[in-house]
Amino acid sequence: MLAIGVVGGTGYTGAELLRLLVTHPQVDLKYVTSRSESGTKVADMFPNLRGFTEICFSEPAVDKLSECDLVFFATPNGTAMKMVPELVENGVRVIDLAADFRLQDADVWKQWYGMDHACVDVLADAVYGLPEINRHAVKSAKVVANPGCYPTAVTLGFLPLIEHELIDDQHLIADAKSGVSGAGRGASVATLQAESSENFKAYAVDGHRHLPEIKQTLAAVASHDVGLTFVPHLVPMIRGIEATLYATLKAESAGDLHTLYSDRYASEPFVDVLPQGVMPETRSVKGANTCRISIFRPQGGDTIVVSSVIDNLVKGAAGQAIQNMNIMFGHEETMGLNQVALLP
Amino acid sequence: MLAIGVVGGTGYTGAELLRLLVTHPQVDLKYVTSRSESGTKVADMFPNLRGFTEICFSEPAVDKLSECDLVFFATPNGTAMKMVPELVENGVRVIDLAADFRLQDADVWKQWYGMDHACVDVLADAVYGLPEINRHAVKSAKVVANPGCYPTAVTLGFLPLIEHELIDDQHLIADAKSGVSGAGRGASVATLQAESSENFKAYAVDGHRHLPEIKQTLAAVASHDVGLTFVPHLVPMIRGIEATLYATLKAESAGDLHTLYSDRYASEPFVDVLPQGVMPETRSVKGANTCRISIFRPQGGDTIVVSSVIDNLVKGAAGQAIQNMNIMFGHEETMGLNQVALLP
Amino acid sequence: MLAIGVVGGTGYTGAELLRLLVTHPQVDLKYVTSRSESGTKVADMFPNLRGFTEICFSEPAVDKLSECDLVFFATPNGTAMKMVPELVENGVRVIDLAADFRLQDADVWKQWYGMDHACVDVLADAVYGLPEINRHAVKSAKVVANPGCYPTAVTLGFLPLIEHELIDDQHLIADAKSGVSGAGRGASVATLQAESSENFKAYAVDGHRHLPEIKQTLAAVASHDVGLTFVPHLVPMIRGIEATLYATLKAESAGDLHTLYSDRYASEPFVDVLPQGVMPETRSVKGANTCRISIFRPQGGDTIVVSSVIDNLVKGAAGQAIQNMNIMFGHEETMGLNQVALLP
Amino acid sequence: MLAIGVVGGTGYTGAELLRLLVTHPQVDLKYVTSRSESGTKVADMFPNLRGFTEICFSEPAVDKLSECDLVFFATPNGTAMKMVPELVENGVRVIDLAADFRLQDADVWKQWYGMDHACVDVLADAVYGLPEINRHAVKSAKVVANPGCYPTAVTLGFLPLIEHELIDDQHLIADAKSGVSGAGRGASVATLQAESSENFKAYAVDGHRHLPEIKQTLAAVASHDVGLTFVPHLVPMIRGIEATLYATLKAESAGDLHTLYSDRYASEPFVDVLPQGVMPETRSVKGANTCRISIFRPQGGDTIVVSSVIDNLVKGAAGQAIQNMNIMFGHEETMGLNQVALLP
Repeated sequence: MLAIGVVGGTGYTGAELLRLLVTHPQVDLKYVTSRSESGTKVADMFPNLRGFTEICFSEPAVDKLSECDLVFFATPNGTAMKMVPELVENGVRVIDLAADFRLQDADVWKQWYGMDHACVDVLADAVYGLPEINRHAVKSAKVVANPGCYPTAVTLGFLPLIEHELIDDQHLIADAKSGVSGAGRGASVATLQAESSENFKAYAVDGHRHLPEIKQTLAAVASHDVGLTFVPHLVPMIRGIEATLYATLKAESAGDLHTLYSDRYASEPFVDVLPQGVMPETRSVKGANTCRISIFRPQGGDTIVVSSVIDNLVKGAAGQAIQNMNIMFGHEETMGLNQVALLP
Repeated sequence: MLAIGVVGGTGYTGAELLRLLVTHPQVDLKYVTSRSESGTKVADMFPNLRGFTEICFSEPAVDKLSECDLVFFATPNGTAMKMVPELVENGVRVIDLAADFRLQDADVWKQWYGMDHACVDVLADAVYGLPEINRHAVKSAKVVANPGCYPTAVTLGFLPLIEHELIDDQHLIADAKSGVSGAGRGASVATLQAESSENFKAYAVDGHRHLPEIKQTLAAVASHDVGLTFVPHLVPMIRGIEATLYATLKAESAGDLHTLYSDRYASEPFVDVLPQGVMPETRSVKGANTCRISIFRPQGGDTIVVSSVIDNLVKGAAGQAIQNMNIMFGHEETMGLNQVALLP
Repeated sequence: MLAIGVVGGTGYTGAELLRLLVTHPQVDLKYVTSRSESGTKVADMFPNLRGFTEICFSEPAVDKLSECDLVFFATPNGTAMKMVPELVENGVRVIDLAADFRLQDADVWKQWYGMDHACVDVLADAVYGLPEINRHAVKSAKVVANPGCYPTAVTLGFLPLIEHELIDDQHLIADAKSGVSGAGRGASVATLQAESSENFKAYAVDGHRHLPEIKQTLAAVASHDVGLTFVPHLVPMIRGIEATLYATLKAESAGDLHTLYSDRYASEPFVDVLPQGVMPETRSVKGANTCRISIFRPQGGDTIVVSSVIDNLVKGAAGQAIQNMNIMFGHEETMGLNQVALLP
Repeated sequence: MLAIGVVGGTGYTGAELLRLLVTHPQVDLKYVTSRSESGTKVADMFPNLRGFTEICFSEPAVDKLSECDLVFFATPNGTAMKMVPELVENGVRVIDLAADFRLQDADVWKQWYGMDHACVDVLADAVYGLPEINRHAVKSAKVVANPGCYPTAVTLGFLPLIEHELIDDQHLIADAKSGVSGAGRGASVATLQAESSENFKAYAVDGHRHLPEIKQTLAAVASHDVGLTFVPHLVPMIRGIEATLYATLKAESAGDLHTLYSDRYASEPFVDVLPQGVMPETRSVKGANTCRISIFRPQGGDTIVVSSVIDNLVKGAAGQAIQNMNIMFGHEETMGLNQVALLP
């Protein structure tokens, strides 16, 4: 059994992590911290957990957390990087679901997150936890940067095309759409149901924090910088991300793209390439750790269209974190992650 | 391992049954039938099942189904009663998720469902599968009538008050609200998203088929007829039922109602009485087999208010059916039913 | 043309008032105040108003507002009562859409709203602005207390039964359901889309502020106190209230209840009694100032069921306020209120 | 007053047309036809019209319809083309809200709609009713082809860039999203609330009927064929279309794109270019005949991003039809179309 701590368990990412942890057969949930809710039963805040855990929120304390084998951070950006160095020193492994360890260049981090990075040395050793690319490195990582939700959907969607250098990678377009849980559980007017339901809009066209993250990963795969236009949109639903990706096929390219994708992901337990012509729907992954992908070449032209869907809170956050945990500790990668998506 | 057949797997009740069956540790899913979809992969219709089963829909055939230990019927009303006698004769046990075996009086059945009952003798032996009342009888039943969704929520909500004869049981009021999945997966204008979302209405005020079912159960508990006004409403959400129940306390009544309810359900694995003053929310049971209940006596008056919530597709249908299966075959009652509700 | 001021134009009630005022043919909108948004264009906050008004939010100032013929207050409870006395003294008429002037007894006000009433003398002369009861008094009122949303739906639903003394008025039940715009535009976790959508729950069972308001009105009609159990619920939609009302018919009662209701509201421009057997839907009044009502006597028993629907922001707030304005200033009562509900 | 007929008034386009017609000051609604609903009161089907019209659906009859000045067709594709020739011969002007007269090339029509065109000669004279391009021709048209919903949003979004030849028009991308009312009012499983809500997906990637329509219009503006990838998506909301458009700026291009758009649409009553940096939201046009547009050049690169929103039932259908009617009969273009969008 793994002794597990969760720092920051009051947001949606934390809540989802708890949902998955309380039924994971190898997890002993020792600490769930929250400064504001210390002393409150976790199940009083999240009544779906009634009957599954009696644990209470506690103050975050490094000495307590150091009893754990693994600590998850489901905190706002900029929190983990202050606590992680001491935990790592104490031999605790860490998965950060926030952005603190996602951008390897501390200057780029500062530019997009507006603060100096607090532990550049730890950052240097952190592993970007997208198992489909970095499984081997995750295995032995001390600190795993769990990918962002949009980056997971977009990267898995573009990956085979980039790996095989089939497209003009200087003019990639990712038109992405997310349910409102992606905006978090903080009180805000913009995501009140009376504001965000029965509404659709693009946002952050001028630059979203997930843009440099996606570009970093794709550049690493391509071995050179890539050009990407990334436009996120807010969808009036709770869970789910769909990313529609556009790229121009290089003149010399050919081959069966569906086979390319199927082969690439054949042994991936959580990436499902759909039969030709079938569109992925976000509801087909609601509550599940699966990314479903389809690829099209409309009218046989040179524009490739990929549609990629995930549950932003599962494969886009908590589920992927559990997947990383399983890899880090040598468990079956799918352990505790065999939930069937809730449909309807 | 139990050999299991599902007749009628293309509706929401069937889909939910499949979701629960494919991960149940003691189930071997042998047949899923559908006349219209015979030959189609089940996972092509319900993509959430991709990776969990390769089974195809097949024609319903009594000889094949007779290889099963248990057959679930998730068919329209009036279908099961035609096939069940032969199956029972062949030694197969049955759980019917439709209404065919819910009303013990065949005349009342005919009055509300508009057709003669096809197997009055089988009906006589059928057990109403509300485990919180009939667990013992379910254990040995050949045919279990799985309760309706509204009746589950309403009956569990009224039960302790009726058992203890605390209320005027001639003027019970049940104001119930259901998500749209309760209307089924058939194509219909009334439940198109453009019609039923952003809308709220009562329906069937003059008489809903669940009225005689609820009255039958409460009368059996009370040992006399009860009077009930039952008004269902359609809620613009997919899953969930909330029933707000009103009853007038008898003059002599007293005692702590919260304790009454807590004690009544203390050993029930799927009924959760909430702490005093906490309201149940349907989302706290989304995808879970739990009924959560609160009880109130506003301003200390003589009107009792109970709020009871379930997921109409789980405790109100497929989950309760699995619970009954577990009881019938001597498995742990909660086996395969430990899903944490999906929140948010 | 009427010179109109709106104090507190940043909430949903204010926004809806502005929607109706900018196209009202007799309105000259002079001031829309907001401390926090002073200087901002109203249409920058509410982009649906782009092209209809160039007005900016300004600081609330009694001297400016005193140039108006009528000032609407769409402020939090407790704000209007501080400014109204001076405005009235300056000859300005007032419609308060908050609760400050709804409860005629200042002690009851304090009990439910937790503060002393600031102008008991003005309160004494205020008129409760439900035109279907108080049209005559509204005509000459200096201060009109615009009714609450739930009270409008519930009162219009019970009214003919109370007026004709047909029911046991000591055990009235109002099971009411409201869309989330009723909770206002303030940032709050509970009404985030990810929390309140795909969810249904009762709330405030122990006592909602609209309870004393409804009881006060019904008691005035009955000429004695009434007993009422009022349970509000939150519906996952933006606009609309449905109230299902239950009452026990007195033994001697008879007569055609549908005719009773039709006759009572025959000359009311904004109350529509539906044909027998037709249920009202909230979407049939979305954006319109109409209350639609149906009445039932299920199975011919002694329990009467009434269903009453309004748009909480229109007949339940801003539309009714405009209706009161029209009455106060001798305009056609329907002026500026002939919007067809938006369906679908 | 104009004598108006509506053929096919039972779908969403027809219902919206009726909403706008019953309050239009110059309209005398003479006939609303429906074979299936003949004899039914229109307001019995669409209760929002109660109190606005007493008209009943009638059988479609050319002789009756020939009494009208103008007949709207809100019928399935392929219906209008059979009746229009006779009506035109009888001197009746026609606005077709379906696709029968949108594609000027009858072969292209046949390719995409799967049937021969029934009146190629009438088609030759039909005018594509996008007022922002064809206002002059609409004025004298006998038959107006009212544009599709997606084509309206996409065309208005691309228009200034195409007119000024600023972009590579061989690789245009339109990632469009529509609310479910766009799928119509026919009973269908795919748009049941339990299927389409809480879900997001792309569809018709291989080719949607609006693709040739958009290409035809843009080609006419560009004076040569254009290349377009058009991917529609289904959004879980009732009304609204958002189109995010991508194009590559030509090397030599420069100038202030915001000014370009503002100038182009300065005198258009129903196109609103938003202030720089402000994103359009579909809810800001809910129920209104407005198209709101923003234009971006992310990170100063060579990819242009345009976001364009409309209400698919208003500017995308019925509202634009009324706008065309006003133009055809010399009325103020905005007459009957000054509804403020319903927000929230």
